[in-house]
Order: sequence, then structure tokens, then C-alpha cells
Amino acid sequence: MNNQCFEHPLNEKSRIYLRVEALLNQLKASAPMTEHYHHLLFFRSIFDLLEIFDQTQIKTELAKDLDRQRGAYRHWLHIEDVDQEKLQRILEQHNQAHHLLMTGERLGQSLREDKFLASIRQRFNLPGGTCSFDLPALHHWTQLPIALKQQATTQWIDTLKPINDGLGIWLNLVRETGHFNNQEAENGFFQSDIDQANILRLNVPVYYGVYPMISGHKTRFAIKFVNFDNSLASTEHILFKLAICT
Amino acid sequence: MNNQCFEHPLNEKSRIYLRVEALLNQLKASAPMTEHYHHLLFFRSIFDLLEIFDQTQIKTELAKDLDRQRGAYRHWLHIEDVDQEKLQRILEQHNQAHHLLMTGERLGQSLREDKFLASIRQRFNLPGGTCSFDLPALHHWTQLPIALKQQATTQWIDTLKPINDGLGIWLNLVRETGHFNNQEAENGFFQSDIDQANILRLNVPVYYGVYPMISGHKTRFAIKFVNFDNSLASTEHILFKLAICT
Repeated sequence: MNNQCFEHPLNEKSRIYLRVEALLNQLKASAPMTEHYHHLLFFRSIFDLLEIFDQTQIKTELAKDLDRQRGAYRHWLHIEDVDQEKLQRILEQHNQAHHLLMTGERLGQSLREDKFLASIRQRFNLPGGTCSFDLPALHHWTQLPIALKQQATTQWIDTLKPINDGLGIWLNLVRETGHFNNQEAENGFFQSDIDQANILRLNVPVYYGVYPMISGHKTRFAIKFVNFDNSLASTEHILFKLAICT
Repeated sequence: MNNQCFEHPLNEKSRIYLRVEALLNQLKASAPMTEHYHHLLFFRSIFDLLEIFDQTQIKTELAKDLDRQRGAYRHWLHIEDVDQEKLQRILEQHNQAHHLLMTGERLGQSLREDKFLASIRQRFNLPGGTCSFDLPALHHWTQLPIALKQQATTQWIDTLKPINDGLGIWLNLVRETGHFNNQEAENGFFQSDIDQANILRLNVPVYYGVYPMISGHKTRFAIKFVNFDNSLASTEHILFKLAICT
């Protein structure tokens, strides 16, 4: 059965983490510069990331979260029936990611100081502002040999390793806390209580033709399924899978 | 010898035409939805086009320009040494494009009224605002069978046929008026007088490692070549090709 996966953050912090993760994924997907318009996606992802870094305290927040998560995992040390080897491996990766984040530069600092990036950043917000006559320097760059361009994109991405690794390990472990259970939404609606969760994950069978609109707070969340075809609330009895990740 | 091609509009009208042409090209390149992030490029191109249509009188302007261009081509009718068959073909295409533009809807009207497009448009300007939790409807759409998505993108693009055809024929004929001549920029600088030109086209050998910064007015333009590596004005003697298109 064909499922669509949806993730929803239950607090502002997780919302920013998921957004940054999505932008990092876009960045990595477009870094090879093998497709004609990869550069547009690549540079826009960089500039969107810089804007989020400027507006939020994501580095401090994530360092604290990694600390808390590490504390929780340490409780499993020396406990029987827990795979100690795997646990040690996780804690090791965790320490490295935390260290890298704490000792690294201010998030995005090298990217902000890169002259080429600075020279093209502003135009990216104008509609169609990336034409060759708007940004001849960018146009020149796109026509460089692919090996040179890949070298540049790799270097730019490398400067984001601290946030990439830290976010990667935190989100992975959070996702692992959730287990998919079967749920039923009567009249296309489902709600439940929660305690301190970060992210909801849903698997929804494609054949219903619906997508979820989710509202969530600290202690409660509600899912309303909407028909894609007419944008109206579904009145169907919908069977789906739900994982609550803490 | 490896050349880079640069185009530069010499008036505001040509600037908008080239920008819309670039966005239409992005739209067509991403319409197949075969790459993971095609949808981001596709929808952003649509929304950028709508913003330009909202801000400018491009339809009226282009209709007038097509009229003027048609008038100029009609002068060649019944003149010896002019390929009359080719001329008739051009005039025929020209008439069709002009008719389509004049009888078509307000530019972008169907796209503005499309409920799905309207529902996702606003989020596209937020940094990272296209995450699955921001736009679950878009996320649902991206996971539809590719044939369905291609059917939708084809329909959306079809609504832009009047501007696409009109702009295509006008720009092609304007580009054909220019012939590439060898030019020399002493100390990386070149200037010249012009009369009523619309677009400059340059072919610059890659090995100089420079890109052109062009400023142009109705009667005069100047080209300053800049070194890509250090962003400083070049002091080299640069041989390049230049076409002035009217």
C-alpha cells in the first residue's frame, strides 16, 4: 500500500530544526551542479539558511538540546539488555557533534563573509533577479568547469558541518523514539493528548486523496484531514499510522 | 575557443522581456518534474512571473512592439533579393502571435485564479517556507504520480502561450538584427554610440576570466570588464565579439 509521509513539529524549536534540515537537504541535492538550474536552488538554499541563522538562536538551542539528549542516553549505560556497543557508538558521535558545534564559528559566518556570495545575495529576492544581466558574475560562475564549481560548493557546504551533524544526530534520535501505531480518524478528524513531544510523523495511504492539517500544543494536538481535490475537510473514516517523537 | 555569451538590455522594456523569457525557460525546464526539486523551481518561476505581470504593462507594450516589428518586416515584401517565402512565413507566425496575445486573457489570470497555486503562493517568499508541514497540500501534490503532475504543469504552461509565443518571436527577430563583430577593449574598457538599440550580445573568451559590467542609455553604452577572481576592473587588452540588436 502506497503511503505518504508527513512530519509536523510540535514546538517552534522543532519547526526551525526541520526547516534547516530541509534546506540542508536541498543544498546537498543541488551541490553537484549537474542540472541546468542547480545553481539557483543551491544559492537560494544558502541565503535562506543565512536568514534563519540571523533570525534565530539555533546554535545555542541545539547545543542545549544535544546536552539533554546525551544525558538521557547516558542513563542506559550499564543497564542490562541494552546494546552497550551501539550505545557507546551513539554517545561517541554525539560528543563529536556537540564539540564541533560548540567550537565552530558563528553559524554561517564564512558564508556571510564570502565576497562572491555577498555580491549575489541581494538579487535573489527580486522576481527573476538572477538573469545574466543582473548578475554577470553569477553567469560567469555557472559557466566555469564543473570540477571547479563542485570544489566551491563542497567548500561552502563543509562550513555548515557543525549544524549539519548536530541537527542530523538530534533529529535521528528524536525520530527513533516514535513508533508507528495504527490510528483512526473518524469524520477525518483525530486528536490526542501528549506529553513533551517534539515531532509527529504520519503515514497516510495515498488512495484517500487527503493531506493532514495539524495544530499542536504542548499537551494536545489535532489532525484534520483535507481532500486535496476540493480543499474541503474530509468526512471519511481514515486509517493511518502515527508516531509521536519526544 | 571557449566563449561565454552575455546579453544586456539597453532599455527597461527589453530588461523585462529578457527577465520574463528567462523565467519561462526555467518553467519549461522544470515542468517534467523528473528531478527531486523541480517543483520548487517550477512554482517559484510561476510566482515570479505573476509578480512581474502585476507590476508591469508587458502585454500592451509587447503588442505595440510586435506591431512595429511587423511593419518593419512588411517593408521587405515584393523587394528583389529578399526570400519572399521565408518572409511570408515570419509574417504569418507574427500575425498569429499578435492575435493570440490580443485575444487572450489578462496575463496570468488563470494562474492567479487557480486555487492550488493561490494556496501555496504566499509561503514561497519565506525562507525555507516550502517544508511539508508549511505546505502539506504541496507535499501531497509532489507525491502524486508523475503523469498527473506533468498534466498539471502542461496545463499551467499552456495558459502562458500568448506571452511565450509573442515574446519568443519578437526577441528572436531582434536578436537576428545583430551581427557579431570583433571588438577590442583597451584596459578592459569599451564604449560606443548606438541608435535605438534594444539588446547587446557579447561573446567573451573564457580564458580572460572576466565578466562584463554594462551600462547603457539610448545613444551610448559602456562595457567594463571585471576580473572574476578579485572583483577588480581588468586592465587587460580584451578581444571579444559584440552584436548590437535593434
